[in-house]
Amino acid sequence: MSSQNNSLNQFSVVGAGPGDPELITLKGVKALQEADVILYDALANEALLDHARPEAMKRFVGKRRGAYAYSQEEINEMIADYALTGAKVVRLKGGDPFIFGRGMEEILYAKSRGIETAYIPGVSSAVAAPGVCGIPLTHRGLSESFSVVTATNERLEISNDLKSALLTGGTVVVLMGLSKLEEIVQIILSILPADTPTAIIQNGSLPSQKIVAAKTRDIVALAMSAVIGAPAIIIVGAVVGLCDAYQKQTREQKHNVV
Amino acid sequence: MSSQNNSLNQFSVVGAGPGDPELITLKGVKALQEADVILYDALANEALLDHARPEAMKRFVGKRRGAYAYSQEEINEMIADYALTGAKVVRLKGGDPFIFGRGMEEILYAKSRGIETAYIPGVSSAVAAPGVCGIPLTHRGLSESFSVVTATNERLEISNDLKSALLTGGTVVVLMGLSKLEEIVQIILSILPADTPTAIIQNGSLPSQKIVAAKTRDIVALAMSAVIGAPAIIIVGAVVGLCDAYQKQTREQKHNVV
Repeated sequence: MSSQNNSLNQFSVVGAGPGDPELITLKGVKALQEADVILYDALANEALLDHARPEAMKRFVGKRRGAYAYSQEEINEMIADYALTGAKVVRLKGGDPFIFGRGMEEILYAKSRGIETAYIPGVSSAVAAPGVCGIPLTHRGLSESFSVVTATNERLEISNDLKSALLTGGTVVVLMGLSKLEEIVQIILSILPADTPTAIIQNGSLPSQKIVAAKTRDIVALAMSAVIGAPAIIIVGAVVGLCDAYQKQTREQKHNVV
Repeated sequence: MSSQNNSLNQFSVVGAGPGDPELITLKGVKALQEADVILYDALANEALLDHARPEAMKRFVGKRRGAYAYSQEEINEMIADYALTGAKVVRLKGGDPFIFGRGMEEILYAKSRGIETAYIPGVSSAVAAPGVCGIPLTHRGLSESFSVVTATNERLEISNDLKSALLTGGTVVVLMGLSKLEEIVQIILSILPADTPTAIIQNGSLPSQKIVAAKTRDIVALAMSAVIGAPAIIIVGAVVGLCDAYQKQTREQKHNVV
């Protein structure tokens, strides 16, 4: 099953980028071209599989309709089983594999089985989805730092880090938070002024991209009326005020009040 | 001066990635191929200019020996002047242009002059440099969030956000902090235990990459003896404990004590 080319490590965790298939790196494309087996996630764009050789095995191991096809342990075993037969295995993950991607868990497991590993970074959705919507995570005079928090930690709770991140003064990005939007907004409102700009972006960088942006106190109602769905990220902070969606929303609101 | 291809916006801010020239995106390469003028920074790998057409103008506008070749206002004018003659202008910046890259300032200025603009994200050094050294910014059981802070804000001070970022409980990444390393380490030690793992990475993802990792109380001495230089990033948090450099360092230390 092994390919002729030996330049790739036996097991590579590869970042697929935020969604747009042109936002993978050259190095990521090379890894796909050389792979014998590709194990891919729901957040990795399937168009990227076109870079693979026709005879490469492409296997979906992500979440469908909220349910995991395989447990992390099963995926780890799959990686080791393929790699130990001599196949070059690529694990293709949305965004960057080391940002809430469990990429390091897979690398540590493969290493423990004696497999050579590599990490190929990807463009993180936490940075790029806001960016393509006109929201820079940092901007002079508005934000000197940013924090990225997941809404669903290993205990399936909202991380305590969210509260402390909101206290930093910098931009805060919450990943996978849509199903807990109301709870998250309550936490934001308990710490920051109710008119702090907040945005929600679904499918950032894809043609299906959708954004809503408003003062935090208005964001839940707006997200409901716009029917924003998962996967989505939430961005909180003054930098959100720079984007067109926010400016349009607040202009319309002013108009309606007058 | 304008190229035939009209698929590129008149002015594109493009992320060059962390250093390794294969860590630019496919979209970034396309923008370089179509550009008439490329204005590039010190942190963008010059090897990337090979993607440009031979007749494209390539102009360095970054920092040399600590001094800026051009002020931000001069760069803004340059962008507008070239773009308004019909040239397709690419601004190539290290990492991602919206993470302490002033990319949005250039976009807002170009827009104010009526120029069509685009943002092409890049792999951020804040994520990828730790990653290629075996440090994932998040990891189950170790870190549920991460913060990225610059050491030199617009007032040339260490941002107040650093202190609050250290209180989040997540991983903290400090960009461009090497010249203020001792001051930064004092701030870390005022908030976190002295044995918190800390790493410093110079030229992450390049062949010249260098890493030192140790307990925070030992990191300044170690950085001095290893002659770590700028550009470098500092990473603080339990995830640093996963990397080989940290494990080797603490093993050696134990050995010396015994």
